[in-house]
Amino acid sequence: MKWIRYTSNAATQYGILEDQRVVQVEGDPFNGYKKTGTVLDLSDVQLEVPAVPSTFYCVGLNYTKHISTEGKSIPGKPDVGYRANNALIAHGKDVVMPRDATKIHYEGELVVVIGKKAKDVSMEEAGDYILGYTIGNDVSERNWQSTDRTFWRAKNSDTFKPMGPWIETDVDLDRMETVVAVNGKEMTRFKTQDMLFGVERFISTMSQYLTLYPGDIIWMGTDGESPDLCDGDVVDVTLTGLGTLSNRFVRQA
Amino acid sequence: MKWIRYTSNAATQYGILEDQRVVQVEGDPFNGYKKTGTVLDLSDVQLEVPAVPSTFYCVGLNYTKHISTEGKSIPGKPDVGYRANNALIAHGKDVVMPRDATKIHYEGELVVVIGKKAKDVSMEEAGDYILGYTIGNDVSERNWQSTDRTFWRAKNSDTFKPMGPWIETDVDLDRMETVVAVNGKEMTRFKTQDMLFGVERFISTMSQYLTLYPGDIIWMGTDGESPDLCDGDVVDVTLTGLGTLSNRFVRQA
Repeated sequence: MKWIRYTSNAATQYGILEDQRVVQVEGDPFNGYKKTGTVLDLSDVQLEVPAVPSTFYCVGLNYTKHISTEGKSIPGKPDVGYRANNALIAHGKDVVMPRDATKIHYEGELVVVIGKKAKDVSMEEAGDYILGYTIGNDVSERNWQSTDRTFWRAKNSDTFKPMGPWIETDVDLDRMETVVAVNGKEMTRFKTQDMLFGVERFISTMSQYLTLYPGDIIWMGTDGESPDLCDGDVVDVTLTGLGTLSNRFVRQA
Repeated sequence: MKWIRYTSNAATQYGILEDQRVVQVEGDPFNGYKKTGTVLDLSDVQLEVPAVPSTFYCVGLNYTKHISTEGKSIPGKPDVGYRANNALIAHGKDVVMPRDATKIHYEGELVVVIGKKAKDVSMEEAGDYILGYTIGNDVSERNWQSTDRTFWRAKNSDTFKPMGPWIETDVDLDRMETVVAVNGKEMTRFKTQDMLFGVERFISTMSQYLTLYPGDIIWMGTDGESPDLCDGDVVDVTLTGLGTLSNRFVRQA
């Protein structure tokens, strides 16, 4: 089942995507819903980011090739990091590269969307707290990433966190691959199961110290390398079963 | 003027504090309001955190004594960091020290509450985007802070971010002091004007790359040192003109 979040007639709400059509609902995937009987064409609505988290988690280092590219050592345990809501944009929106940005890379990532309040959850129970999965592009300015004291502008400048296009509730993580293409040409491909620490491990570990809330998101890290992106490049991140998150990169005017 | 956020009759809303009484309003400080004519006793309402941010910013290193205590070098520019909403608790609520936490410290901080959407703002204009100020206690587990790869549990475990008691719109930062007391005994005192980078500098710098939204908060850093806190300790953080943020620290059962 596919949940989309969209704007139509100036109202933003959740709906269910069925065969390229949007089934309108009352309610949302977190607190219950019922179908209204109204159906819209997907092309007639404005896609929004599929979740607006209370807290935006991001794993950072979770695949070995990316860790060596970053010059980091392999983490011994799942320590999660953070990103910022201001940077979120939907599928199809432009990533704006600031005038003084000089080395912008993509990072295609699996995104977990939390469905229920989770505290002190075991690895076996963790799946019960997941609503579904979507796609993220953890856009990064590598020079700022290495010289600033924090990731504030390197990873959290406005528009640097494309997410979408929708939430898929039924996936098989063991059979999934992430493929990133620039202007239609494949550049990066990696298997989801190559994560150092899996989704259940992260949710269980985090929930020993903190409460995860419905709509919270966990970006699960990336593998491989990105070329330096240029004005006009279109980056497509495809995950098996989740669709394609596509965004154009444009230089700030 | 003092804005409080409170719960009464199962509804959470903003009100104006006047002489220990809560003047009920329709609306809120960000989108406009009018007084309803209803007035409640402060003792009859449940105080809530005075803002729930879209993004929770925290400066980290902004006073020289604290920076040397942390063994860090003086930052050359204002690079902001992040904290997590799950950790926020109101004035008067207990900070729960996890069973395996061994070295818990307070950090008394000035908190800026953003009042209007801010992007590309000059230092001179920055003040126009501030609703007011409140108090934060950036509770930290120092062993996790030094051994984990990120601050996720060291600074963002549930209840580690007390904030309040309310938002004061009229302050004179140049005359303010932060005083932290444990069980009524003063332990730390520092002047707000000793910040390396001031509020306007941070807002202006951040807004060149990101949009600040109404209700976003910026915690401005701390100075001095904390003793190791024990089960039952009460920590009071007082800032001139802002009142006192008081929270008891209790060991997780």
